[in-house]
Amino acid sequence: MADQGGLRRVALITQAGAMAGPKLAEILARAGHDLVVEGARPEQVERLSALGADVLALNDPACAAPGVGPGADPAACERLVAQALERFGRIDAAALSPRSGGAGFVRGPFLEASVEDLRGMLGYFDTTFLWLRALIPPMRRQGGGQIVVFTSAAGKRPEANWSLYGAVRAGQSFLVQAVALEHAKDGICINALGSKNVVAPDFPLAPAGAITDDHIERGAWSAPLEAETPLGRLGRIEELAAFAAVLLDGRSQFQTGQFFAYSGGWDVD
Amino acid sequence: MADQGGLRRVALITQAGAMAGPKLAEILARAGHDLVVEGARPEQVERLSALGADVLALNDPACAAPGVGPGADPAACERLVAQALERFGRIDAAALSPRSGGAGFVRGPFLEASVEDLRGMLGYFDTTFLWLRALIPPMRRQGGGQIVVFTSAAGKRPEANWSLYGAVRAGQSFLVQAVALEHAKDGICINALGSKNVVAPDFPLAPAGAITDDHIERGAWSAPLEAETPLGRLGRIEELAAFAAVLLDGRSQFQTGQFFAYSGGWDVD
Repeated sequence: MADQGGLRRVALITQAGAMAGPKLAEILARAGHDLVVEGARPEQVERLSALGADVLALNDPACAAPGVGPGADPAACERLVAQALERFGRIDAAALSPRSGGAGFVRGPFLEASVEDLRGMLGYFDTTFLWLRALIPPMRRQGGGQIVVFTSAAGKRPEANWSLYGAVRAGQSFLVQAVALEHAKDGICINALGSKNVVAPDFPLAPAGAITDDHIERGAWSAPLEAETPLGRLGRIEELAAFAAVLLDGRSQFQTGQFFAYSGGWDVD
Repeated sequence: MADQGGLRRVALITQAGAMAGPKLAEILARAGHDLVVEGARPEQVERLSALGADVLALNDPACAAPGVGPGADPAACERLVAQALERFGRIDAAALSPRSGGAGFVRGPFLEASVEDLRGMLGYFDTTFLWLRALIPPMRRQGGGQIVVFTSAAGKRPEANWSLYGAVRAGQSFLVQAVALEHAKDGICINALGSKNVVAPDFPLAPAGAITDDHIERGAWSAPLEAETPLGRLGRIEELAAFAAVLLDGRSQFQTGQFFAYSGGWDVD
């Protein structure tokens, strides 16, 4: 499945050391992809190489939020894509985890938010914009590609005291969907994948150490999340990675412009 | 991934000889599932067995549309599920392809449709209802399961001269989503997967012989379908099967109540 006329497929994963990145990289390596990993942990690169993948590891902190905040560098994404193309000549698939670059106001009453909070949050737009701008031209030249942008299901269902985050995530996913329609004719599939209550070791609401790669220690922190989720549990990061992989590994390329919620049913409840 | 405390996973596939059935059965067999196939072709059963699957093949024409039309038998689904449970003791995953049982009025001006056309079309509801009623109780007893119901993206975007079909498909997908929410607490994931312009040898708009398992002979019949699809091509049935498989094979179980369009972007255009 990873063959393109004898060539191995090449996947780019941003923020590869965080959230679904490690598990997704592993699944794609096992499926025969070579990898460009941005922001991977050193031991990850070794493990992926041991699975047979040719791995190009790049670390440019500006790629997390190239448009806003300290260290912003709008050219960071294009620079990284150029390095990937120099090494592999093509990028078949890209998993993007844009960050806002904002100061971190995520929840709270609307009336307590400042316009600076909003502007920081709007970094999700900048980052998404810059990555798509960097990736679409080479994918168009090579005749197609697959992009998944990790967003959030918070943009699918409005909730009190989560207004800025939800609104910006809604707009971010919409941007992904609209850009997808413009480039469908180029054979590029671009979809948004919005999770909620899927947890990795760096999940912000969990106490340090509560989540490891293989275990979730439930507690007071997880109870309200479980309660609001129809499936009654937290999502595991390898589940999210398994779902993302089928949108990236070339076996299924007839979906574009979609928003996929990955939320245990939260968004439809 | 197909292990449940040492047990092999069991998947039920209805209309297994049609549309995505053959490819989906093959993917799940390769992933270590045992299979209950309803309506499979004889050579399919041999091939699946050769892949290592324990296969129970059942053929009950009433299962396609048990509620309406000639040969209707509302007990057909429960009877088939009972046979599957007798053989394997559990059903971990089910791929359902409900048919309407109607006479086949699908497209045309609303004013030319009869109430009988509508009633035939409403068979999609009956069939979906009866399959879900048959499958949810045993899945609840065993502590969970995964169900995908193949519907249609026609229910996602209203279109002139396709009113009855779209409306019934919209309602069918809604039924799936609503029932999913009622049984999320039982650990059962139920999702609707609505395709459009994904073609298999039995695709109704293609001339005989134009589509084989491995080739699509494009022509006047396919041109308007390609033109209305943002990705500019028809979907291949193995792509749809690959996407359906990740919702069924146990690796990813944190989505429920979703409607997934599989349409080349048609539904968002």
